[in-house]
Amino acid sequence: MISKTYRDMLQGKSVIRELSEYAQNVLIGGGVLRPEDVFDFSLGNPSVPVPDAFNRRVAELTQTGDPMLVHGYSPSLGIPSVREKIAASLNRRFGMNYTAQDIFMASGAAGALAHAFRLVTSPGDEILTFAPYFPEYGPYVAGTGARLRVVPARTEDFQIHFEALEQMLTPNVQAVLINSPNNPSGALYSQETLSRLAALLLEKEQAFGHEIWLISDEPYREIVFDGAQAPYVARFYPRTITCYSFSKSLSIPGERIGYVAVNPQSGVSALLVNMCAQISRGIGHNCPSSIIQLAVADTCDLTADLSVYETNMNLLYDGLTQLGFEVIRPGGTFYLFPKALEEDAGAFCKKAIEYGLVLVPSDTFGVPGYFRIAFCTDTQKVVRSLDAFARFVREQYRR
Amino acid sequence: MISKTYRDMLQGKSVIRELSEYAQNVLIGGGVLRPEDVFDFSLGNPSVPVPDAFNRRVAELTQTGDPMLVHGYSPSLGIPSVREKIAASLNRRFGMNYTAQDIFMASGAAGALAHAFRLVTSPGDEILTFAPYFPEYGPYVAGTGARLRVVPARTEDFQIHFEALEQMLTPNVQAVLINSPNNPSGALYSQETLSRLAALLLEKEQAFGHEIWLISDEPYREIVFDGAQAPYVARFYPRTITCYSFSKSLSIPGERIGYVAVNPQSGVSALLVNMCAQISRGIGHNCPSSIIQLAVADTCDLTADLSVYETNMNLLYDGLTQLGFEVIRPGGTFYLFPKALEEDAGAFCKKAIEYGLVLVPSDTFGVPGYFRIAFCTDTQKVVRSLDAFARFVREQYRR
Repeated sequence: MISKTYRDMLQGKSVIRELSEYAQNVLIGGGVLRPEDVFDFSLGNPSVPVPDAFNRRVAELTQTGDPMLVHGYSPSLGIPSVREKIAASLNRRFGMNYTAQDIFMASGAAGALAHAFRLVTSPGDEILTFAPYFPEYGPYVAGTGARLRVVPARTEDFQIHFEALEQMLTPNVQAVLINSPNNPSGALYSQETLSRLAALLLEKEQAFGHEIWLISDEPYREIVFDGAQAPYVARFYPRTITCYSFSKSLSIPGERIGYVAVNPQSGVSALLVNMCAQISRGIGHNCPSSIIQLAVADTCDLTADLSVYETNMNLLYDGLTQLGFEVIRPGGTFYLFPKALEEDAGAFCKKAIEYGLVLVPSDTFGVPGYFRIAFCTDTQKVVRSLDAFARFVREQYRR
Repeated sequence: MISKTYRDMLQGKSVIRELSEYAQNVLIGGGVLRPEDVFDFSLGNPSVPVPDAFNRRVAELTQTGDPMLVHGYSPSLGIPSVREKIAASLNRRFGMNYTAQDIFMASGAAGALAHAFRLVTSPGDEILTFAPYFPEYGPYVAGTGARLRVVPARTEDFQIHFEALEQMLTPNVQAVLINSPNNPSGALYSQETLSRLAALLLEKEQAFGHEIWLISDEPYREIVFDGAQAPYVARFYPRTITCYSFSKSLSIPGERIGYVAVNPQSGVSALLVNMCAQISRGIGHNCPSSIIQLAVADTCDLTADLSVYETNMNLLYDGLTQLGFEVIRPGGTFYLFPKALEEDAGAFCKKAIEYGLVLVPSDTFGVPGYFRIAFCTDTQKVVRSLDAFARFVREQYRR
C-alpha cells in the first residue's frame, strides 16, 4: 500500500515556493513587472562561480586519472586519501588533531546530518535546536524517530537564549543541534556563546549521568564578514560532531559533498565514524562521487570568490537600516534577517512582492515577525532593489 | 547516547571480507603465494573502463558548461532534462511509455531501493524476496521498519520457487523484490517466470483487497549473454517500481547514480515519484551530482565494453563443468554460482583459498552448498585460475 506517511507530506505548503512562483508566473508571466524589476531574494543558492582549480581538477581526473580509481567504488567511509587531506586541512586551519579515521564522507549536509542524528539518538530521544532555524531540520529529525524541540529565539542578537535552553535541557535530551553562521539569521555564534554552551552541557551531563552530544551544522563557515573567522565549534566541546558541506564555500551544491568529523577528544571518534557505514546501509546512503571526492580533497582549502556576499550584505544592511528597518548585522552567510514592519510577517511579504521583492516570512524558521533576504545574487540587482524597498516602505508604511 | 542499534551492527562478520583479507595478508603478505597466483573472485567490482564518451562529456561540462547549471542544485527529483532523456531511452529500448515525471534520480541502487521500499510499505509490513539474494537487502529493509522474508531457492534453475512463494504470499506482504539478472546466481528470469509471477500477484491482490507492488532491482540488466536481452520487468506488471544503477553498465560505481522508474500503468506513478522527494528529507538523500546526472543523460544508451564478461563466463562455465562442477549457466551478471563439492560451502571455500582461489560461500546469500565467483577481472587471470581449480579439485576431492 502506498505509504500514508509520505503521501501526507505532499500536502505541506511551501511558503517560499508559493511566493517565488507568484513572482514568476503572475508578476513576470502576467507582464505586471519586467524580469529585471523582480528581486527574488527567497532562495539560498550560491551565486558565485566554482573556483577554476576545482573544474580543472575534475577535468584532469577524467582525462588522466586511473579510471578504476576515479570511477570505482569508494570505500563506505570515503576514499582514505580524501579523508586524510580533509583531516589535515581542518587541523591546519583550526588547530584540531583529527586523523582520517575521524572523518566520514557524506552526501552533502543532509547526508551528514542524517548520520549524525542516528549516531547518538534513538527513537523517542529529544534533540534541541534554536529558533530561528533551518526548517528542514524538522523532517530530517522526524525521519530518525527522534523528536526535535526548538528553543525560542534570543531576538536581541540571535545568539543562544540560555534561560530557555536550560529549562528545556532535560534528561531526555541526547543532542543539541546548532548552525553557525546561521541560516536564516546570519548570526555568528561568539566565543562567549560557545563557551557558555559547552559549560552548560558539561554541567548537565554530570547531572543527568549521560553524554549530551553537540551537533554543529556549519556549511556557511567560510562565509564570514568583517575579517572574522568562525570560531571552530569542536574546539569548545569534546563531544562535538561537525557536519559540513562544500556547497556554499566552493559553490558546488549540485555535487552533494560534505563530511562528518567527530572530535577525537570524545574518545570514541573512530567508533562513531565506523558506525556511519552501518547507518548508511539502513538509509540508502552512498558516499559522494569518487571523482568529486578526489577533486574536493585537492581544493578543500580554497573557496569561491565569496567577497560579493560581503559587498551585498553591506549594501543591504546600510540601505535597509537607513530606511528604518531593525536588523541584527550578520556575522556570516548570505542571509539578512530584518524585523518586518508589521507583526504579521506573511502579510508584510505579500505586500512586498507587489514591488517585485520576494522575501521569506520568518514563521517558517520558528520565530514570528521577521523576514529573510537571501542576497546570493549579483550586486547590481541588490543595488536596484533598494529603490523598490524605498517605495515599498514609503507607500505601505508611510515612513 | 551512542546508538546501540548501530553499534551492535559493527559486530557483524563479513565472510567475504575475511576471505579477501586472508588472501591479501596471509597468502600474499606471508609470501605463501605470488600475487599473480591469487585469484580474488570475491568482489563484484566492474573491471572494464568507462566509455570514453562519458569521460569526455564530464570534461566538457566542467570546461564549457554554465557553472551555475553544472554545479548548481539539482531539483530534488533530479534535473528535468535528465529525467526526460532517461524516460525516452527506456521507451525506445523497451517499448514503455514513461515520461519525465515517472523518473526519480537516486544515489545509486541503494538510494533507489531506499525510496522504493518506503514508497509502498510501512513499518511491520512484509517484503518478500528470493534466495539466493543480495545480502544487503537485509539491512536496507530493516532500516525502513519493514520485514524482509526470503522465499527458498529453486535450485534446479534459480528461477522462482512458485510453490514456496504462494505459501508465503500472505496479506501482510506489500511488496515483492526481485533482482534479475541475479546477484549471486547469474540467473535471468525468463518471460515465463515473469508472466507467472505477475499473474500470481494480480490474483493475490484480488484475494487480499490491496495492491502488491513489484520492486525490480536491475543493475545488471545490460550484462546478458548468448545474445539475449533481459525482458523488461515493468512490461509484465502494472505496479512495478524499477530500481536501476549505472554502476555496472557504465562501469561508474563510484559515481553513485541510478534512478527509480515507476510504471505509468500503475496510474499513480507521478504521485509516487513526488513522494520520493519527501522520503529523501527523512533519510538525508540528495540527488546524484548534477554534473554526473548531465553526463549520464547523454550516455545512457551506451555501455562499457561488456564483452569480456561473456568471454570470462564461457571460459569458467566450460572449464568448471569439465572439472565436474554442477553449474546453472548464467543468463547475465558477472557471477557464476556453482554447487560446492561438499555440503559445507564455508569449508569448501576455506580449502579453495589455499590454492589462491578466493570464492564466496553461498550461505550469506540465503542458500547452502554453493559458491559465488565474481569474474569481473581480466581474462588472462580467469584462464590461469582454471589450473588452480583443477589442482584444488584433484587434491581435495580426488576427482
